[in-house]
Amino acid sequence: MGAPAGSGRVILIGGREDKHGELVILREVVRLAGAGTLVVATLASEEPECQWRRYSKAFAGLGVPEVRHLAITSREQALDRQAARRLDGATAVFFTGGDQLQIVAKLGGTALLARLRELFSDGGLVAGTSAGASAMGETMLVSPGVRGHPHSVENAFYMTKGLGLVGDLIVDQHFAQRARIHRLLGAVGENPGVLGIGIDEDTAVIVHPERCFDVIGSGAVYVVDGSGVTHTNVSQRASLSTLCVFDVKVHVLNAGTRYDLSTRRPSVYTAEAAEVTPGT
Amino acid sequence: MGAPAGSGRVILIGGREDKHGELVILREVVRLAGAGTLVVATLASEEPECQWRRYSKAFAGLGVPEVRHLAITSREQALDRQAARRLDGATAVFFTGGDQLQIVAKLGGTALLARLRELFSDGGLVAGTSAGASAMGETMLVSPGVRGHPHSVENAFYMTKGLGLVGDLIVDQHFAQRARIHRLLGAVGENPGVLGIGIDEDTAVIVHPERCFDVIGSGAVYVVDGSGVTHTNVSQRASLSTLCVFDVKVHVLNAGTRYDLSTRRPSVYTAEAAEVTPGT
Repeated sequence: MGAPAGSGRVILIGGREDKHGELVILREVVRLAGAGTLVVATLASEEPECQWRRYSKAFAGLGVPEVRHLAITSREQALDRQAARRLDGATAVFFTGGDQLQIVAKLGGTALLARLRELFSDGGLVAGTSAGASAMGETMLVSPGVRGHPHSVENAFYMTKGLGLVGDLIVDQHFAQRARIHRLLGAVGENPGVLGIGIDEDTAVIVHPERCFDVIGSGAVYVVDGSGVTHTNVSQRASLSTLCVFDVKVHVLNAGTRYDLSTRRPSVYTAEAAEVTPGT
Repeated sequence: MGAPAGSGRVILIGGREDKHGELVILREVVRLAGAGTLVVATLASEEPECQWRRYSKAFAGLGVPEVRHLAITSREQALDRQAARRLDGATAVFFTGGDQLQIVAKLGGTALLARLRELFSDGGLVAGTSAGASAMGETMLVSPGVRGHPHSVENAFYMTKGLGLVGDLIVDQHFAQRARIHRLLGAVGENPGVLGIGIDEDTAVIVHPERCFDVIGSGAVYVVDGSGVTHTNVSQRASLSTLCVFDVKVHVLNAGTRYDLSTRRPSVYTAEAAEVTPGT
């Protein structure tokens, strides 16, 4: 289905994960990171030092033996032959938030990205929050600088190629908080084969190698599945018209639910989420 | 299906309909109002005179022979024996925006409301914009004064009984503009039998007596259909937990599409919306 043959895990976080309370999400990052070095990659951020201080403190507090900073601020630095060495000994890489274009524009096609994929194939963990989560999809949503009409397919967002660590998924974040379901519906309207995942703040999905994901955290994850779409008006001609799309399937998932990416079915897997009936 | 046996039409407008350009929506109100008096009901508004001036001017400009103001500002006025006489000779009533609770709290159980239903049963038109649209449903969404977590079913909204001119529907407005899909998903999660309709600003649905509606205006109408829901965690116990609901069907409809409320199927009925394939 377009997913790379990785045997590692990916954690996609919707941004603003708790850093002072139970730390449910960061604790899970640490648990799945294993015993090696955890690398904090601040490529998306305009304030990399600030992000580095915040996350290195949080991860050290959770008992990670070594936290390392991947402080790549330009394409030139990413291309440096020594850059890939920054991942030596690492078992996990955590991408901070900021601008997702900065991640792919710096990493795309580099030996450093090849090294990241290798770490992932070897069973490593790649996590990202906010922009760092968006960058993980094969296709990536980007908001243009100007605020357009929420239904103009042209103005609301555009898409570009992401890092592709989670195939077929389009990942969006800060989901309820920034009212982004419209652009995910538009993205699915453009290619109903794509699966859109909108992740709320302080909420994450853990994507397992078995092509399923679990939800953790305090908010919800919206799955927008266009595979049953019977009509869409999206076309080059219609790029300025109001979206029209029939038969989109939406699931709202909370902590304790699992989604199977192969069968496209959600299910309840813990008592925490089981209130009425099983979902499958 | 709970809808009153009316042979009239209802126009539900998502708010902020164009009043200076093509006036697509208000023009349709006038066309369907017929030859009688058009009554502007400002029950929802804190500035009824301002609303009255705005709409009487717009409707007069569109050639309506007589526009009358239903200026009920209290329950006492609504209960007045003469109040119902204000609808004599009217073929259409247009409810302005404001606070939908003000409409139902004043009108509920009055002879004036009975007179409005009579007008509707006789083939008259009842239209409403913003709060005026929300009040038309059998069940009505209300935002509490405090802004809660968007996924707390308890804080995000509550529901009360509306005027019931459109049965089974829950109507929401300013839809994309105020990011309201979450509360409509929550409402459908509570009772999957309900059909949620979210209407964007400058967008409207015309509900015909044949139990179907057409979309007009510049934005989109979101239909949230819970009838296929296989799991929901909504319960009294779970009122503070994050929503979890599987298999909600969502349609995004633009001008030129029709939705059949009996079969719950959308379709394209004008060339304007037909871009790719028919939807049925």
